[in-house]
Formats: sequence, structure tokens, C-alpha cells
Amino acid sequence: MPIIEPRIPKGMRDLEPSDMVIRNRILNIIRRTFEVYGYEPIETPALEYWEILTGKYGQEAERLVYHLTDQGGRQLGLRYDLTVPLARYVAARKHLHKPFKRFQIQPVWRAEKPQKGRYREFYQCDVDAVGSASMLVDAELVTLTVDVMRKIGFSRFHVMINNRKILQAIVQKAGIDNRRTADICQSLDKFDKIGLDAVEKELLDKGYAFESITTFREILALQGDNQSLLEKLRILLTPISIGLEGVTELEELLQGCVSMQVPPEYLAITPRLTRGLDYYTGPIYETVQTDRDASSLGGGGRYNGLVGIFSDVELPAAGTSFGLDRIAGALRELEGETALRTTTQVLVTLFSAEMVDISLTITALLRQAGIKTEVVFDPMKLKKQFALAGNRGIPLVIIIGPDEMASSSVQIKDMLAGQQVTVLRRDLVTWIETWLAEHQTTVL
Amino acid sequence: MPIIEPRIPKGMRDLEPSDMVIRNRILNIIRRTFEVYGYEPIETPALEYWEILTGKYGQEAERLVYHLTDQGGRQLGLRYDLTVPLARYVAARKHLHKPFKRFQIQPVWRAEKPQKGRYREFYQCDVDAVGSASMLVDAELVTLTVDVMRKIGFSRFHVMINNRKILQAIVQKAGIDNRRTADICQSLDKFDKIGLDAVEKELLDKGYAFESITTFREILALQGDNQSLLEKLRILLTPISIGLEGVTELEELLQGCVSMQVPPEYLAITPRLTRGLDYYTGPIYETVQTDRDASSLGGGGRYNGLVGIFSDVELPAAGTSFGLDRIAGALRELEGETALRTTTQVLVTLFSAEMVDISLTITALLRQAGIKTEVVFDPMKLKKQFALAGNRGIPLVIIIGPDEMASSSVQIKDMLAGQQVTVLRRDLVTWIETWLAEHQTTVL
Repeated sequence: MPIIEPRIPKGMRDLEPSDMVIRNRILNIIRRTFEVYGYEPIETPALEYWEILTGKYGQEAERLVYHLTDQGGRQLGLRYDLTVPLARYVAARKHLHKPFKRFQIQPVWRAEKPQKGRYREFYQCDVDAVGSASMLVDAELVTLTVDVMRKIGFSRFHVMINNRKILQAIVQKAGIDNRRTADICQSLDKFDKIGLDAVEKELLDKGYAFESITTFREILALQGDNQSLLEKLRILLTPISIGLEGVTELEELLQGCVSMQVPPEYLAITPRLTRGLDYYTGPIYETVQTDRDASSLGGGGRYNGLVGIFSDVELPAAGTSFGLDRIAGALRELEGETALRTTTQVLVTLFSAEMVDISLTITALLRQAGIKTEVVFDPMKLKKQFALAGNRGIPLVIIIGPDEMASSSVQIKDMLAGQQVTVLRRDLVTWIETWLAEHQTTVL
Repeated sequence: MPIIEPRIPKGMRDLEPSDMVIRNRILNIIRRTFEVYGYEPIETPALEYWEILTGKYGQEAERLVYHLTDQGGRQLGLRYDLTVPLARYVAARKHLHKPFKRFQIQPVWRAEKPQKGRYREFYQCDVDAVGSASMLVDAELVTLTVDVMRKIGFSRFHVMINNRKILQAIVQKAGIDNRRTADICQSLDKFDKIGLDAVEKELLDKGYAFESITTFREILALQGDNQSLLEKLRILLTPISIGLEGVTELEELLQGCVSMQVPPEYLAITPRLTRGLDYYTGPIYETVQTDRDASSLGGGGRYNGLVGIFSDVELPAAGTSFGLDRIAGALRELEGETALRTTTQVLVTLFSAEMVDISLTITALLRQAGIKTEVVFDPMKLKKQFALAGNRGIPLVIIIGPDEMASSSVQIKDMLAGQQVTVLRRDLVTWIETWLAEHQTTVL
């Protein structure tokens, strides 16, 4: 039989142990924090009926969604996001308690050609509350976001906050037809990248009147702390009722964050924030690092009308999402060379084939204490065993030869410090636990 | 727009919070134990090239595997197991360290009609070591299996152990052509369900000679502890060299388990164990509960020849797999009514709209301590809030009204005991942590 080339589809990837270590660390924090905030896990099938997916994406589905026909002739597609499955899930359960607070961490698939650095398969980490119109839901999602980011290890970031109603009011104040809101927002969205002058030029090029653009300039130029920004917006947008409503909502949201003890420096009212406008109906939020390029690490907002595709009942909802790939990339950049490459903490070497029993006994001792331990099975030179640990980034290596066996001790080599010490066998677990606790930022 | 019915494809399922609670508890133990034994996580794409999948399954792939054509005309399929992706992964990385010890926990998809109680999408939890022929690898996998099962909470189970080489030798001793081994094993496999007489009858019906069957009877009737079983097998199978080799391998395997401190009562040498014979080449192992029907909770064995589909280098390998659905089902049966239904530990009620700040402050306090807390956002009668907690299985409910606010205290209702106590706010976290520690078998 000819050998088949072991390749993977374009836009897909294998995740190696060094990738998984950082991803699992992040996912554990995200999952645990979601639960601490009272959100419960669900999972849905990778395959949905094609009509469920086209219900949301319409004609575009053919281009965006992986499509297949199963052996029974059913038309199916691979889920494109976790929002459509949530809507289907809620619609199918009429007696679900409200608000239904769920999180879902699963891969999604995109058939279209991915942007640079993006993939056709990636994890979404979504957290949503369905069935409450309270601004406290939005406040909770923002609070949770700050908590997740700090626990992961970020300190220089903020959650930008805006309200779709404020954007609508700005467009109305500028004297522009409501239906152009999306077009305007597309230009405003570029402010961080290209600056105020370029945004203005683009709007002029698009044919908007100079007087209209003055309004946008006024809004984009607003400065101050969150409270004063909201006051200035209230003055600027009076008497447009939708705008005042939007400002009041954000005041409630911020007050909720204060009650939930969010340090205010992480929150930034940002009137230019737009986030794919056609989907959201109220507050919107987005997390960015403040000391790097402003690429988004996640975001969300309040939306309605989604469950309605599958049900005659409409429910208010709000949710946010964390970008695992982006967060992992940013964290790796922060940690640089010190980043952990393996889950394994200790390698127990095999001195010779005759010493296998003592090596396994020591290994069992460490494993019973929860220490992540690999043991060498096949006899080879000690030098090679050290190289194995070094290449893989295993931080501690244990050597037990006849001398150590006679004295009920072991040698431990600290691969980071390059030092070797003798430790009595009865002190071994404590010694390693202490070492790991001291090195937990780099090896746990 | 007409409403689309919110249904899911046949053979698929949504996993609700009550399902996820038990599954995540099991997965956390499995994942952590795999790491403790020095196995590292990897993940591979859901979609593989069709030729990769047909390389293993051949013509059968059309029936077994979900097939699709992507927007670029590529022929792809959804992975059917985690073994083919492992083989591809290893073959694509020529300089990977050996043994490569990895685990992989991801869903797989089966296009064929599922058996009763099975699904077309389910998680596999695979742990494999590629590149070592040592029996210590098999010993480690068996040790790890016992460890996982005990940590999950099973006490009445054993890991059945056999060797494909022993099965081959038995067939040879019975004077039957090697090529009938699979056919014979199919019948032997039914021993637990239908008993010795029925197995003999089936073999006779299949046309095997009475004298041949006597050999099988002798083997199936063997009794004794593991050591004496191996001694009896050694005598019975002398001088068939492949059989003696198989017995020696199992002796090495058992000795490795002893060195790794496995309590021997969990291991059961079982000469009738067969496990899909064409795949395995050496020791095989399978976990069953001893006090229930003998359905398998997982198993594995030693195999070769897999990486060879994708590479001209052949590598010895061994691995085992845990059946998440089966384990979750068995655990749910063990726990019965006491099984946890939600991750949420505390519901903080909202006494009235005016009391929202104090409710949120208390909520933040609990969450900062890592207590999984939901807070009510929308004012409703307290009775309804209690019903919400009761229906969902949230064990603790906190009430803060004007009296409690004045006295810096809260009321806590223990929903399991039906009792309500007053606790000072400064003692609240400690009180709940103590309660949770005392109830950890049922609520954590």
C-alpha cells in the first residue's frame, strides 16, 4: 500500500503540548470564573440541521458554513458560532428558568478563507444570560470580564463600553438617515487605527455633509473620566430620547459594576466603539490591551430578536465572548522565554535496567502526591535522559543509582538553575512541593 | 419569516447543565490523572482529509464517516476516532521524542446508525504512548486506569488483562488455522453473557471439531489468582512459543503494576478477554464494574502497524481509552438522588429593588472567595426566588432584608436540610466554605 501523506486541511492546525499548556491554563480560569458568576455549562452538537444555520445566515451560509449530506440524506452543517445553537436550545425548552445563564466553550468552523493568523476551526468561549432586560446583567458580564483578564495575568487592559442607542442618537443628531448607521459606524470603527482626520476624510469621500461630520468630530473628541463622559454625552444628545436612554443604561451598568467592586480603572466609556452594529441593541463592550496594539481580546453586548428565529416568544439577552487564540497569543508575548512548554514537572531517570523497581516506586510516590511525573522505561545513557528533559522543558530530574538506593535518598537536578542536590527519600515530596510553589508562575 | 423548528439531528444531543456537571467532574479527574502520569495534551482538527480517514477504514469509510466537500473542492471527513489523528500527528513529526506520551480528549463522529444508548457524536478520552516496546508502558496504562476509576469514586471494578499472543496460542493449540482466530474470539467474547455451554454450542454449530473445543473449555474454566492463572497458562501453552511469550509479557506487566503500587485486587488476568482482535498485537485490558452488568467502562492494549499508513517507519505503541458516557451513566447510577444538578452553590436573593446594592456587594464578596454564586437581578417575590433555587438544585440561598442590613448579617437557608440561620456578614465566607467542605460529596 502506498504511504499516505500525513497532512491536514488548509486553515486547520494540530495543537501541540506547548500550545495546550497555555490554552488549558486560560480555559481553566475562564471556566471557573464563569461558574463563580453563576453561569452553567452546556454543550451542543457540532452538526446542526442546515435550515437552523441558514435561518441565521441566509444565502451567505453557502459560503460561510461547512455543509454536508448525511447517510440518511439529511442536510447538515457544522456550527458557525455558539449563538445560533444557544437560540435553538432556548427555543426548544419552553419552561427553562429565566434568566437562563449559560456558558459554552466549544470549537466552531468557518468555511470561508480565514484572515491572516485566524483559522477555519477555533474555540469560542461564550457566556450569555437570556431572559432579563436588567442592566445588571451587562454589569455582571463586564465585571466577569475584568475578573477573568486579571486572573489570567493581564494588568494593562480595559473594557471599552458603549451603547448602540448612543450611536443611533449620534447619527440622528448628525441629521443622517437611520439606515446609514452601519455605514457610519464602519468608518468610526477605524478611529484607533487611522486617526480622526482620516476618519473625517473617509466620511467626506462617502458623501456625507461637512456639517454632519462636525457632530462625529465632537463625539470622537470627548475626553474625561467615565462619569464626566456620560454627562457630556447627555448634554450633547439632549433631547434625542434614544440617546438619553442609552446614557441612562450605561449609568446603571457602571453603578452595577461599582456595587460588584470592579476597580474603575479597567472600565472605559468609549463613544466610538461600534462592534458589528446590526446584531446588538443596547450596551456593547470590548476588551483591549492598553499597552499593545488595540486588537480585541473579546467582547459582547445586549441583543434581542435572536431566539425569535425559532420561537414566537422574544427574549432579551446579553452575552460576551473571549477570544482564546488572541488571549493565548497575548499571554505568550507577555511571558516570553519563561512560558511553560509541558505539563510534566518531574522526570524520573532509569539508572540501569536492574534499578527499574526503585525508579517506579519513587515515581508512584510522586504521582500519589499529585506531582506530574514521567519515568524512563527503556534503558539509555543518563546524558540522553537529561537531554530529553531539557528539550521538553521538564524542570526537575531525579536520579537514583546504587549509592542513592543504599542511602534512601535521591539526586534532584533543577534544570532551570542547573543545580543538583541530594534529598532523603522521606523528604522528597515536600522538597518538590516547595520548589513547585516557589516556581509556580513558570512551571504550574 | 416562518418560525424554524428548533430540532437537532438524529443521534445527536444537547448536554444540559445537569449532564455537564457530572461529565466535567469526570473529565477533570481524567485530565489531571493523565498529566500526573506524564502524558501531555494535544488536540487535532475535527476535519481530516478524506484520504487520511479512508487510509484506515477503506471502503467502509463511506458508511462510517461523515463526508463533505469544502468550498475549495477538497474532500474532507469528520474524525471517526482519535487513533488515526494520532498516527498522522506522529508520522508528520519525524523528530518527536520517543516514547511520545500524549492524551487527547475530543469528540468523534459516527455516521452509521448508533446502537441503543449510543450517539453519533461523543467524546473519546484517549491516552497513548508511541515508541516504546516496554511492558512497563502497558503497566503504567493499567495503573493509571485503576487510579482514575478510584478517584472518580468506583470501588467495585477490575481491569481485565489478557494478551493477544495467548489467544493466538490457544487457537494454535486447538489445532485451528490461525486465520480463524477472529471468528473464535467472537464466540469466546460471549462467555460472560451466555455462559460456557452456549459458547461451546456456538463453536460446534460453526463447525469446529469437538476436540478443538475441549481446549477452549480448559482455558475458559481456568481459575485462581493472577499469579497461578499465569502459571497454569504457561503449562497449558507449552511449547507454543508465542503463547509463552504472551505469558512472560503479562508477568512483566503485573510486576510493573506491583512496583507502581497498584492494589492487586483491581487486576484480573482473564484469558477469555478478546477486544477487537485484528487491531491489537500484545497485552489488552478492559475495565468493568464487578457489581453491575459487565459493560465496559474503557479499555485498550498494545498495537503496532498504525503509524505505518503514513510513514515508512514503524513504531510500537500502546494506549487505552475511557468511555465518558458509560462512566457518567455508571456514576449517576451510584449517586442516585444525591447527584449534583448544577455548578451553582449559592443564590443571593433580591429583597426589593432598593436593596440591589447590598445584594451585589454580598455577591461580590462570595465570588471573590471563589464561591459559585448567582444573584437575582429582577425584583420578584421571595417565594419565587426560593422556588428557583429549589428547582435548579442550588443548595444555599441568602436573604438580605432591611433587618439584616441594619445588623450587618444575612439569613442563609440550607435547601437540603430545610433550615435557616442568621450569620454575621464578617463570618459569611467562612460559614459557607465550612458548609461546602462538609457537603463536598454532594455539592462540589
